Amino acid sequence: MREVAILGAGLVPVEEHWERSLVDLAGEAVRLALEDSGLERVDSLILSNMLAAATGVAQLNLGAQVADWCGLRGIEAFKVEAACGSGGSAFRAGLIAVGSGHVDLALVVGVEKMSQTTGPATTAGLATAADADYEAAHGPSFVALNALIMRRYQHEYGWQHADFAPFSINAHANAARNPFARLRHPITEKEYARARMICDPINLLDSSPIGDGAAAVVLAPASQFRGEGRRPRVIVAGSGAATDSIAIHDRRQPTWLTAAERSSRQAYAQAGLGPEQIDFFELHDAFSIMAALSLEACGFAERGQGPRWGLEGFILPTGRLPISTHGGLKARGHPVGATGVYQVAEVARQLWGEAGPNQVPRAGIGMAQNIGGSGATILTHILRAG
Amino acid sequence: MREVAILGAGLVPVEEHWERSLVDLAGEAVRLALEDSGLERVDSLILSNMLAAATGVAQLNLGAQVADWCGLRGIEAFKVEAACGSGGSAFRAGLIAVGSGHVDLALVVGVEKMSQTTGPATTAGLATAADADYEAAHGPSFVALNALIMRRYQHEYGWQHADFAPFSINAHANAARNPFARLRHPITEKEYARARMICDPINLLDSSPIGDGAAAVVLAPASQFRGEGRRPRVIVAGSGAATDSIAIHDRRQPTWLTAAERSSRQAYAQAGLGPEQIDFFELHDAFSIMAALSLEACGFAERGQGPRWGLEGFILPTGRLPISTHGGLKARGHPVGATGVYQVAEVARQLWGEAGPNQVPRAGIGMAQNIGGSGATILTHILRAG
Repeated sequence: MREVAILGAGLVPVEEHWERSLVDLAGEAVRLALEDSGLERVDSLILSNMLAAATGVAQLNLGAQVADWCGLRGIEAFKVEAACGSGGSAFRAGLIAVGSGHVDLALVVGVEKMSQTTGPATTAGLATAADADYEAAHGPSFVALNALIMRRYQHEYGWQHADFAPFSINAHANAARNPFARLRHPITEKEYARARMICDPINLLDSSPIGDGAAAVVLAPASQFRGEGRRPRVIVAGSGAATDSIAIHDRRQPTWLTAAERSSRQAYAQAGLGPEQIDFFELHDAFSIMAALSLEACGFAERGQGPRWGLEGFILPTGRLPISTHGGLKARGHPVGATGVYQVAEVARQLWGEAGPNQVPRAGIGMAQNIGGSGATILTHILRAG
Repeated sequence: MREVAILGAGLVPVEEHWERSLVDLAGEAVRLALEDSGLERVDSLILSNMLAAATGVAQLNLGAQVADWCGLRGIEAFKVEAACGSGGSAFRAGLIAVGSGHVDLALVVGVEKMSQTTGPATTAGLATAADADYEAAHGPSFVALNALIMRRYQHEYGWQHADFAPFSINAHANAARNPFARLRHPITEKEYARARMICDPINLLDSSPIGDGAAAVVLAPASQFRGEGRRPRVIVAGSGAATDSIAIHDRRQPTWLTAAERSSRQAYAQAGLGPEQIDFFELHDAFSIMAALSLEACGFAERGQGPRWGLEGFILPTGRLPISTHGGLKARGHPVGATGVYQVAEVARQLWGEAGPNQVPRAGIGMAQNIGGSGATILTHILRAG
């Protein structure tokens, strides 16, 4: 496996893009990523999307569709899907394709269009990430499944709901400075406490907003593209992928993200470093409980002590381990099949020193973690400036 | 890229499996493929499926789901989708993963469950392989789009409907000897001519049947798994992937499969051989016109002369280039997202000399070609006994 670099990235603001189609959104991200990379063509396009088939866009074979739309007709193209972990999975497929020497230039684009779907249809669509026969068939929404985990976690470790507030407050504060974020307003502890209940104990401000969005990155062999000196190189130093049961009740410890532990260990081993060397972390805070669980499973917080990292301020932009530096899923927004690519692009922006008001100090090594389902598929990537 | 071998394969008969779930079908294919390979575990599972999200199974993240069901919880898993080209795309992703050294053992499993869906829902589901905005929105079914191509082809080259009969007759004759095939009865020229019209000029016996099915193969580095002498090794000698516009009207020549030409050239180049060295060919005969077009685009028949290969008997098991040796899509059946994996497994069975009554003579080098949409995504793989 040869070393792989990220040459450029393209982001579409996460919003309700009523006037734009799914393919148009993906095309915009691709155009921006190619421009940013100084390229006109790639060898392979790997697309991630979760819901286009399930909720009404009724378009499959989106890889070929988007390649053609972008003027790349003819190149290899396919779609990768692993629920909300689709983006990370597609990124890893691109990484392997370029790392193997199979292709020289790969474009990974994640796209999702959710606002044209009715609320109930969206809820049903998101529930396809749960076990259809043993979870969804009984009626719980995807929020409800996360609420079960959060309630159990509070029971086991004694945390109050208010102890999770720092995760959401940090995410909103960071999103307020990010032009690509969906929810660009800061929130207070009081607002967090009083937010509308969605599924006890998860309230509105524990939850990430859905949205329309697309993000793309260009991957190339590091040795062949040493850059033109205009920005530091970003190298993919480590990659890990692991799964767990989809159904929460099938797991030995529903409050421990086994696949996060496993995939982060793979990524640490490949990168030759440990959690103490990670400077910042784009984690999968679809719900605030998931931020706590990721911090624990990846070796940052002690077991059961994830919320302490929020309460102690470690997760702030100036803290020991800044997280959700662009707003995270919580406030940048969660266009489900695209999220994993947003995360990687945000890590790259930090390493390039191009995160503007979101720039964290000492951004030398960053990690991104993307989760499909309530912990069933987890991808971890470590990027470094090189 | 290191050389990759197929260690084993597992096939579920293509039928209406009313009593079995999609996950159960996939699990059966995985179990059989592992048994056939003499393995208990792999590093990565790559699943192909087209319609589970669109037509009512309502289960995404099928990679993790199937891995867990098969006792492989924890391993890397994801789904690849490229409409009816999903299986070939997943096989190529597995090939690249193993070839790169990223993983040592990959399992590629294709699965589709179509019989629980109503006819109109299936028709709508299959139409998601067409361009949603510029084709499907106008009402044509996927059959209708292929009928447009066939009509145009007949107009350009002067072939009569009866000239396509040998493709269907050969497929049915081969399927009659294949225990995994859906339509195990021979047909006659008269039956072909009198079959019920589906969409002029495509009649019932030009068309492949849908079905429930699953197929799996295990991939490993050829150097590390030299076999125990019980069967010849099967090496993946060449692989190609290319795309075209999804919408037929966007193509310069709707009767020419540009992506088949392109991907087969890639595969020939990688394998270091040409069409004249291919001993047999599992092509994507979803409709008889597609058999003709594949033979032309891959360099076998002259342009516009595909039907001649049927009329001359070249495609028979004893002919110059046996095709659809296990019945093809036409009669083995077309469980859409699984088909590409069936094709590869069938080529491997020929090369192992394990095709029983379907065995073709001199099976040293075989080719499989899988098509997504009406020619939008095309994967070509060349396998050889080694």
